Amino acid sequence: MIDTTSHGVSPAQAAAEKKLTDTVVASFEATSDDRLKTLLQALVKHLHAYIREVRLTEDEWNQAIEFLTQVGHITDDKRQEFILLSDVLGASMQTIAVNNPVSGNATEATVFGPFFTQDAPEIPIGGDISGGAPGQSCWVEGTVTDTAGNPVPGARIEVWEADEDGFYDVQYDDGRVTGRAHLYSDHEGKYAFWGLTPTPYPIPHDGPVGRMLEATDRSPVRASHLHFMVTAPGQRTLVTHIFVEGDPQIEIGDSVFGVKDSLIKRFETKAPDTPTPDGRDLNGHSWARTRFDIVLAPAEI
Amino acid sequence: MIDTTSHGVSPAQAAAEKKLTDTVVASFEATSDDRLKTLLQALVKHLHAYIREVRLTEDEWNQAIEFLTQVGHITDDKRQEFILLSDVLGASMQTIAVNNPVSGNATEATVFGPFFTQDAPEIPIGGDISGGAPGQSCWVEGTVTDTAGNPVPGARIEVWEADEDGFYDVQYDDGRVTGRAHLYSDHEGKYAFWGLTPTPYPIPHDGPVGRMLEATDRSPVRASHLHFMVTAPGQRTLVTHIFVEGDPQIEIGDSVFGVKDSLIKRFETKAPDTPTPDGRDLNGHSWARTRFDIVLAPAEI
Repeated sequence: MIDTTSHGVSPAQAAAEKKLTDTVVASFEATSDDRLKTLLQALVKHLHAYIREVRLTEDEWNQAIEFLTQVGHITDDKRQEFILLSDVLGASMQTIAVNNPVSGNATEATVFGPFFTQDAPEIPIGGDISGGAPGQSCWVEGTVTDTAGNPVPGARIEVWEADEDGFYDVQYDDGRVTGRAHLYSDHEGKYAFWGLTPTPYPIPHDGPVGRMLEATDRSPVRASHLHFMVTAPGQRTLVTHIFVEGDPQIEIGDSVFGVKDSLIKRFETKAPDTPTPDGRDLNGHSWARTRFDIVLAPAEI
Repeated sequence: MIDTTSHGVSPAQAAAEKKLTDTVVASFEATSDDRLKTLLQALVKHLHAYIREVRLTEDEWNQAIEFLTQVGHITDDKRQEFILLSDVLGASMQTIAVNNPVSGNATEATVFGPFFTQDAPEIPIGGDISGGAPGQSCWVEGTVTDTAGNPVPGARIEVWEADEDGFYDVQYDDGRVTGRAHLYSDHEGKYAFWGLTPTPYPIPHDGPVGRMLEATDRSPVRASHLHFMVTAPGQRTLVTHIFVEGDPQIEIGDSVFGVKDSLIKRFETKAPDTPTPDGRDLNGHSWARTRFDIVLAPAEI
């Protein structure tokens, strides 16, 4: 249902604008791939409805072309400004929402982000993902179950996060692999690992997307989070984060709209020399612990 | 009016998707520039409505990011793929439509295109814009009047066109200035010049936009045309083309949707040695002539 109101223009003008949209939609009619036809015809309808609704000026159209050109030119192998743009407009999160419908008690999904890598090392249960990255050590534990409460043994759990300076390993130029690993749930579906207590960090904001956030008085900062991707046969792949209860950025607003209430977890800070769950000696540093019980939706719903 | 239908999803799912859109719209609420706020909030609504309506998959989202990345990377000082994309989606023409409302008997506007330059030479009335570019000589004449029929003397008329090989001067790398000029209407609003009979040519289609046209079985070819931009004090600037009656590409479909019936003109072909209007000797070549009477809308309507 596209806006067909007149926007205060004459009937002749409204008819001319409508006719143009119809002509462009019809130009895609011969597309042999039905899905591509659907995607492009709907795109034309929404794009034209937008232009008509806001009465886009030619100067604004020029500014949009220039903005997209800048987004294109800052994008390279390491910097993906189009994904950032999609993220800050909530388009990434809306795509996640459409593809991960609420499914009973299943854990909710959130944005994937640009910092996952395929080659993260495997660690045993109770191992350390930090790889020496700076930050407060944090014990993370939980279970993986299906929506009926049955344990899911052998689920592959990918975890990745920024260091306390707000950078992922891939944002350094030295090839380090830190703050990421994968492990498998045990025969009871349990898992545990040492990570770092998540801290807030800004998305890259020295480019056109950052300037847009500044012009709109929006914070570029992401709420503190730890990434998870959990895969198991017969279950829908879960891409999500956990967030830190009490992080003020949750109230200010996560810059990519990733926060869901169910994903906010309590991180308990422990005084130095408090005994650790696995007896690890943290050399007199404070540490934290949290629990994240993961419920996987069935692959087909 | 954004689509708020359920797309066959559960009420809980529809509510979650709607809530996300509302959250993103609200994130722009503090924008101090009211117009920017309007533009971005409406953009978010349409973008999210599109994703929800087509149930965009994560794979399709990835393909869209990759497509935009390619559009960004082929764009440089000489090639503007974002404008091409806007053109073939009819967004450029819809922007023209919104900003050049039908105004009585005023000449209709069409797309500006990427090939205008500021530095075209001035010619006298009856002069030649071709600069030696190859093609059939064509006598173009007409008047410039206002909507009440009064002549507009001294109107600045910029004209530009491709040569018979389908290229504008700026598409060659040798700095030539051909197929473009400006002149002024006389005290009766009359003008005339020698140009080239327009021929069809494809928009640059060796990039991602060309691949999209191919995947959708659309022609990249533009209907044959001659560009005009006419400016005069107190009148709305007119950016338009004239098209060639009988050009088969008009039926096939102009690739950027620039054709309007009122802009299709009869080009009469004259046998070799037919006397020319100004006595010019064309060395035994055939030539053509056409008439384009220009009616300028008032600057404020």
